[in-house]
Amino acid sequence: MHTRNDWYVACTDADVTADHPFSSTVLGERLAIWRAADKVVAFEDRCVHRAAALSLGRCEGQNLRCMYHGLLFDAAGKVVDIPGQDVIPPNAQVRAYPVAVHYDWIWVWMGDPALADPAKLPTLFDGVDLDDYGVVNGELTFEANAQLISDNLLDFSHLPFVHAASFQAPLDWAKSPMTIKQLDNGVRFERWVENHTGFHFIESLSIGVNDTWMGYDYLVPGVLVMFVGCFPAGTARACDYGRPDFSKAIAQVSTNLQAITPVTEKRSHYYVFTGLHRAASGGGSDPAIVARNLEVTLQAFNEDKTMIEAQQQIIDGQPDRPFMPTVHDRGVTLYTRLKARLIAAETASHADAPLENAN
Amino acid sequence: MHTRNDWYVACTDADVTADHPFSSTVLGERLAIWRAADKVVAFEDRCVHRAAALSLGRCEGQNLRCMYHGLLFDAAGKVVDIPGQDVIPPNAQVRAYPVAVHYDWIWVWMGDPALADPAKLPTLFDGVDLDDYGVVNGELTFEANAQLISDNLLDFSHLPFVHAASFQAPLDWAKSPMTIKQLDNGVRFERWVENHTGFHFIESLSIGVNDTWMGYDYLVPGVLVMFVGCFPAGTARACDYGRPDFSKAIAQVSTNLQAITPVTEKRSHYYVFTGLHRAASGGGSDPAIVARNLEVTLQAFNEDKTMIEAQQQIIDGQPDRPFMPTVHDRGVTLYTRLKARLIAAETASHADAPLENAN
Amino acid sequence: MHTRNDWYVACTDADVTADHPFSSTVLGERLAIWRAADKVVAFEDRCVHRAAALSLGRCEGQNLRCMYHGLLFDAAGKVVDIPGQDVIPPNAQVRAYPVAVHYDWIWVWMGDPALADPAKLPTLFDGVDLDDYGVVNGELTFEANAQLISDNLLDFSHLPFVHAASFQAPLDWAKSPMTIKQLDNGVRFERWVENHTGFHFIESLSIGVNDTWMGYDYLVPGVLVMFVGCFPAGTARACDYGRPDFSKAIAQVSTNLQAITPVTEKRSHYYVFTGLHRAASGGGSDPAIVARNLEVTLQAFNEDKTMIEAQQQIIDGQPDRPFMPTVHDRGVTLYTRLKARLIAAETASHADAPLENAN
Repeated sequence: MHTRNDWYVACTDADVTADHPFSSTVLGERLAIWRAADKVVAFEDRCVHRAAALSLGRCEGQNLRCMYHGLLFDAAGKVVDIPGQDVIPPNAQVRAYPVAVHYDWIWVWMGDPALADPAKLPTLFDGVDLDDYGVVNGELTFEANAQLISDNLLDFSHLPFVHAASFQAPLDWAKSPMTIKQLDNGVRFERWVENHTGFHFIESLSIGVNDTWMGYDYLVPGVLVMFVGCFPAGTARACDYGRPDFSKAIAQVSTNLQAITPVTEKRSHYYVFTGLHRAASGGGSDPAIVARNLEVTLQAFNEDKTMIEAQQQIIDGQPDRPFMPTVHDRGVTLYTRLKARLIAAETASHADAPLENAN
Repeated sequence: MHTRNDWYVACTDADVTADHPFSSTVLGERLAIWRAADKVVAFEDRCVHRAAALSLGRCEGQNLRCMYHGLLFDAAGKVVDIPGQDVIPPNAQVRAYPVAVHYDWIWVWMGDPALADPAKLPTLFDGVDLDDYGVVNGELTFEANAQLISDNLLDFSHLPFVHAASFQAPLDWAKSPMTIKQLDNGVRFERWVENHTGFHFIESLSIGVNDTWMGYDYLVPGVLVMFVGCFPAGTARACDYGRPDFSKAIAQVSTNLQAITPVTEKRSHYYVFTGLHRAASGGGSDPAIVARNLEVTLQAFNEDKTMIEAQQQIIDGQPDRPFMPTVHDRGVTLYTRLKARLIAAETASHADAPLENAN
Repeated sequence: MHTRNDWYVACTDADVTADHPFSSTVLGERLAIWRAADKVVAFEDRCVHRAAALSLGRCEGQNLRCMYHGLLFDAAGKVVDIPGQDVIPPNAQVRAYPVAVHYDWIWVWMGDPALADPAKLPTLFDGVDLDDYGVVNGELTFEANAQLISDNLLDFSHLPFVHAASFQAPLDWAKSPMTIKQLDNGVRFERWVENHTGFHFIESLSIGVNDTWMGYDYLVPGVLVMFVGCFPAGTARACDYGRPDFSKAIAQVSTNLQAITPVTEKRSHYYVFTGLHRAASGGGSDPAIVARNLEVTLQAFNEDKTMIEAQQQIIDGQPDRPFMPTVHDRGVTLYTRLKARLIAAETASHADAPLENAN
């Protein structure tokens, strides 16, 4: 189960060319995402005539042509031409989903179009300007339910084990939990590590003893926003172990956004961009280091993928066996409850006023 | 649903070697098709003993040997030898299907053997002698229900869209319908295009302004018989827009046969041969043009395959959503009703007299 | 259906390295098989915490570490460490299966651990010392139910047909049955072939006219133990057609063990080792002949695989159609009845006293 009144990443901006739609499946629904003259449009991927794939269609200015029998759709989804037929039935229309282009990704609003709210698009933390960062994009497909990926991201005690080879996080990450705080739309995780020596997977960025801060929000419907940085020793205590002034970071300053898109109940797509600060010993000005950052990130996410896909197979084999929670599952629990509340609220509101565009 | 008292193409004549059977599945039934000394035989692909595949067997003159435990079958399907056992049970027999070798394909009668009727084998149009044509064969597998392929062939308004890259048909093909006539066993489509300049996918066959005639029958259980030719300008009017004398065609004279075999509910096999007339600027005497004809034909059928397989997936995802018919669907409607009537008649007659060989 | 209170081969000893578990599925149950300091251990492949795959874990001396969130298990399956959590729930335990390392394979007892009985591990025939043989190992995966492989091995009349190309057995093998005897835990097959000239697939081992003896036991839950040898002409009569003194064999002396492991209802794993006697014109001292022996053995087993996988597909398509037994099915019938009795006995005893470790 997933919330519908939320933005999901359907593809990257670069996936959508000028001439042909891109086919993407979100929450089990096939979408044809195409570029009209002045905007990106998302249609259900099904022609009203005989269920042909509109994602095999052709962009014609403000319109999309189905390339089976030539029906032409305007950007609102309405049929405006049926070659060889004069009359167009008034209900000849496909569903169009609200779209936002945000951080170079195409986000699609899967719920009631009337409720589509740009303010619900996630943003990086205050004080982070992406222009200051050397950024790289990556994506992966997991043959697993999106919830298992969320669970992974809601408990970073897996770092020293799953990512022993990539991130090389110290065992300390598993032994003490992060500070966890419930948000209206997710869960916030923060921690200071005093007397840290930074992360070592990019050797040239390693520094001496410092105070390292890591914080991330994990937000419904499955978005992670993170900032990490090394600060002068003593900073943690000086700011009373609260969130620091990011501009005072001295090394290994990075930020990233991760979005988990449920494709089907057993497949998820994982979008990520990760940036290293150009100044402050961040490495973001050095193309080799930026490339190395992506390499390690994808190595780590593939470690997650191996673990989570096997987990999915095991669960499929014995779907009714319960888990045994540990102290590290608090974030998972908070997020799971929040999501259940939001889904219940959506269901209640749908009962009052059914969606106009519901199938 | 498909008619059973009909001939279906199970394989090509060349598929069946002298020594070993060919395995083919028609209407979900596995067949072992093998070459006896004087004829081609089609068995159900299941040994009576322990369900071994007879298609893994060995041809021995007039008999087929199962290569699991050695049972020997005569061409009627009767067991004539069980190595090591003296007595052969009287019911030791596999089903044998009536077979016809016709136009170099192996056609199998899937219904009541007593009703197998060679007259139901489709033939090219009167006036077409295949010896006059340079012929090439092709085949494809579609991961889709055969009905979706029939629907495609029953509405040629898809030509300018699906086949924009291959056949390069003008938009006119979508804007005006063909003349459609119900037949006892299918639907007949015919059209004249006056002031046409022929098809351009084989440049060397292009001619000046002419009257082009195209006609095809789409016949139960899924066979298309076609003739196309360019005639001197004025011919359409001279023959009152009826069927012309094929011998008067001057260029681009071609004929073809296409057969759609339902393999399973989600897979179909597509057999085609296409011939270009050797004379009359047909190109049929030029091996390069004959080869080019097959190349374009398969390119086009692969365009259909891409479209139809996506359509099948979309229908599978939302099987209950209705289509929205257009003016072009008349042929589809006529054929669908005819097929339903034929299936209903078969069912009624089965209720009266069950098949002797029914499983 | 399979018996549970039996040993099944889960993998070879070489599959289990010092550092990481090996993942194997037996009777549909995923296992993580790992090497503790002094023994091999088999766990259910599912961490108690969140169903992560223990087969992705790390061996740490006498313990296994789950590499998702770091839970540590002792060799009995009990959790002994949860990083970051002081208290370990008393039921934090995974199922551990009894294990035996036998003939270089890892055998796992799938039933009640209290009943695990080393005496039920199959052994080669009395008088066969594996040290005297040049031995090679092989394995295959069949996409078929294990019962179909058992049926194959319980009726050697398939030899002249399925293995016409590999073993080149004479038609005589199909025409007369072996002597068949019911055992408490399987079925025994024996035969003398007088005036035989041996098997010809290894030409250099062929000898003149002799008496050849072949005998094998096919044992629950799916293990074949075989001995074959050529004896001086007259031996058969001299020992009244009973089992000969193996030490008197003069050529082509071989022994082998075959174990069929049901992976799922539609997949089986086939383990085999086959040995040629080093002396007695056995070929076992010649590496080229030993290698050739494996080559022919795997060729033959792949012939079985082709036949049985097709058989499985045909049965899947028409699961309710009965077989037609022949005189050769006596071994199949005896074994099938025995297995049914053993399964029924297990079920009855489970009803009395449920397994402590049952899921």
